[in-house]
Amino acid sequence: MTLAPIDRFIGETSFYVRYAETDAMGIVHHASYILYFEEGRTNYARQRGHDYASFERSGLYLTVTEISARYVKPAVYGQKLTVRCWIREIKSRGLKFEYEIIDADTGALHVTGFTKHICISKDGHVASIPAAWRAWGA
Amino acid sequence: MTLAPIDRFIGETSFYVRYAETDAMGIVHHASYILYFEEGRTNYARQRGHDYASFERSGLYLTVTEISARYVKPAVYGQKLTVRCWIREIKSRGLKFEYEIIDADTGALHVTGFTKHICISKDGHVASIPAAWRAWGA
Amino acid sequence: MTLAPIDRFIGETSFYVRYAETDAMGIVHHASYILYFEEGRTNYARQRGHDYASFERSGLYLTVTEISARYVKPAVYGQKLTVRCWIREIKSRGLKFEYEIIDADTGALHVTGFTKHICISKDGHVASIPAAWRAWGA
Amino acid sequence: MTLAPIDRFIGETSFYVRYAETDAMGIVHHASYILYFEEGRTNYARQRGHDYASFERSGLYLTVTEISARYVKPAVYGQKLTVRCWIREIKSRGLKFEYEIIDADTGALHVTGFTKHICISKDGHVASIPAAWRAWGA
Repeated sequence: MTLAPIDRFIGETSFYVRYAETDAMGIVHHASYILYFEEGRTNYARQRGHDYASFERSGLYLTVTEISARYVKPAVYGQKLTVRCWIREIKSRGLKFEYEIIDADTGALHVTGFTKHICISKDGHVASIPAAWRAWGA
Repeated sequence: MTLAPIDRFIGETSFYVRYAETDAMGIVHHASYILYFEEGRTNYARQRGHDYASFERSGLYLTVTEISARYVKPAVYGQKLTVRCWIREIKSRGLKFEYEIIDADTGALHVTGFTKHICISKDGHVASIPAAWRAWGA
Repeated sequence: MTLAPIDRFIGETSFYVRYAETDAMGIVHHASYILYFEEGRTNYARQRGHDYASFERSGLYLTVTEISARYVKPAVYGQKLTVRCWIREIKSRGLKFEYEIIDADTGALHVTGFTKHICISKDGHVASIPAAWRAWGA
Repeated sequence: MTLAPIDRFIGETSFYVRYAETDAMGIVHHASYILYFEEGRTNYARQRGHDYASFERSGLYLTVTEISARYVKPAVYGQKLTVRCWIREIKSRGLKFEYEIIDADTGALHVTGFTKHICISKDGHVASIPAAWRAWGA
């Protein structure tokens, strides 16, 4: 059921749905998945030996320029989800992450999506992604 | 600077950015705009004489099947924003909203995006959008 | 039904409950009211001729040291709420806000609470609240 | 540095601070800790062999009637935190959780607090906490 590519590193992060992330329909609110994407790519960096917090302390940011999500199946409170994410493309100044969010136990697909980012410096100018981070794309 | 069409009703909703909606970059977190889209389309319904809360009480939901957002310019705490939204397309069982989020004072464009919805009944089956709501598309 | 004192300025801010602020119980999530408190005190400052955003640009912050909330009656999606807030006490380096959240139409009481704040400078040291802001307490 | 009692079960839950949980001060927003409390007590139930989601499916809810939090030291993005929580008191129809949030590595104290809950049925009436859950207090 997974849509993930087989030729590159896939980050995996699992967690339980929090009550605050649900809404009055009794399911996870659609904006909560955008936070799960973020959780996924943060942990992707950790799993590849990089820490986004220290990236920022070095004066660089990977700011979000575009997001997209498709909702396949609703998730509910207490459910254990897994965000799987990978880099689709990385250029000198930008990159694109892709995601799928699945049930951690059954693998059932809930949400797919992508985010695009550009690298900027503290003063807001577009900057080059450091080589160590660009190596993620390899 | 607006991208809004001129041949249909445009809903407009203005509000101040809340502190909790910002993040450690000092700007509005990208997921917050997804909440602004929702605020915009809820108020669109009110402005057209319909109340989404009573729509739900009638046993129907317009669940989100897809979202997309492009981030043009960051907004900051305390800034007054306006969400403008309109219906791009409405079919018997689904519809598509488009959005632009601008500075309420200067009109500067911050974010654009869309959301797609399908109508479902309480038991989760796809349902027809009531005629009174379909008239929005006119 | 109000608990607000009659001897001082009361800030009032009204807004509709957002869908994302509800949870799977079908009511407003208890943490959402903490955001409403913040919305209330930000607007209190605006109503008294001060802008918290410019306060921060001057290098000062009113950081939160304590919060408390009592939940009297649940609110629901689409409901119009009013946050009423006032300053209970203001000292050279700290202050205490009190709140009540009521139905904007009926005045029914939903939540009461307070927040305590201290003034700090950008480098994290405790600082004096500027005289112009201390005058709020008068 | 811990304030936790030594005569009862302490639930422990660790996680990384998410970017969306920070604010423009560069630290974790004060309302985010209320979500951490919730995460902590949900996991407390899991650790004691109960699942709050199935509790709700049985038609009962532990609704929040009061919250309190004291902010000792700010946490930042990417920091690994641990929520420790325990039951202070449990009665036939209500209970009180206490919390401390500490740095997962150093044990430094960030936030303390409590939440009070009453048990209600789906129709909103106060109900008795089932014996299996009351045994938590032992």
